[in-house]
Amino acid sequence: MITLTEGSVRAEWIDYNGHLYDGYYAVIFAEATDAFLIRIGLDEATRTATRHTIYTLETHVCFLREMKLGAPFRIAAQLLDLDQKRVRLFLTMHDSARDIVAATSEQLLMSIDQSGEAARSAPWLERCAKVLQDLAKADEGLPHPPGAGKGISLRRS
Amino acid sequence: MITLTEGSVRAEWIDYNGHLYDGYYAVIFAEATDAFLIRIGLDEATRTATRHTIYTLETHVCFLREMKLGAPFRIAAQLLDLDQKRVRLFLTMHDSARDIVAATSEQLLMSIDQSGEAARSAPWLERCAKVLQDLAKADEGLPHPPGAGKGISLRRS
Repeated sequence: MITLTEGSVRAEWIDYNGHLYDGYYAVIFAEATDAFLIRIGLDEATRTATRHTIYTLETHVCFLREMKLGAPFRIAAQLLDLDQKRVRLFLTMHDSARDIVAATSEQLLMSIDQSGEAARSAPWLERCAKVLQDLAKADEGLPHPPGAGKGISLRRS
Repeated sequence: MITLTEGSVRAEWIDYNGHLYDGYYAVIFAEATDAFLIRIGLDEATRTATRHTIYTLETHVCFLREMKLGAPFRIAAQLLDLDQKRVRLFLTMHDSARDIVAATSEQLLMSIDQSGEAARSAPWLERCAKVLQDLAKADEGLPHPPGAGKGISLRRS
């Protein structure tokens, strides 16, 4: 488990229900994914030099608690699964003031080579593969969260 | 199937990969959910008068195609499932220029009563239930999309 980002709920993210708009939970999680990109060695200079990047293939967000204006949050990541081109992450939004989990986002990310005419999937750069393998090793003893890998259903409360 | 919103990709939604940022796909889908709210009778005046609204419980977005600056989109909705308090929707982002599906968002939404001290789940208002039942009836012959109800996995390509 690593911490990716920290912040607090901004006024422009509040909706007509008086709390953090669901679309902006996704933006907060996407910004955490950007931090993950840098964490594994795909900073801007490397992206420009190598034309390698990451695309998000899927995200599954569970909205567990309301977040009000100013609520402080911290996004943590657990690496669930890894292969030659893809990684499956489980992000958790912690409300640091109330010490609760406000939301989770499972994500499937793919390594992309943008050097050709069309972007296409590509194996991780060696430097990224090394960091990812270390993160996978660090998290291999952690149980997967109960919601991981689950689809959406009315049958489950 | 009903159309909820139409628009085009704005400059402020473009990321370092030169395309629509994944967090903003979610914002576009969330705005479509707002339109759905109004479609079932929960416009602002009704929300204020009744203190009833909808909260999003879960969303599962699949990013299928890149969307570049200015790409026109239309969000359509299929009603998959309905009970006394919840509805499961399948939203599709159509790129109207290329005639392709750029992304999908399965959503689980809950009817909420905000009149008490804490927001809590509540049966649909009668007027909403009527519209939802009509939409369910209109969509009951449609097959569910292949991705509906599926969880995220590295095993599935």
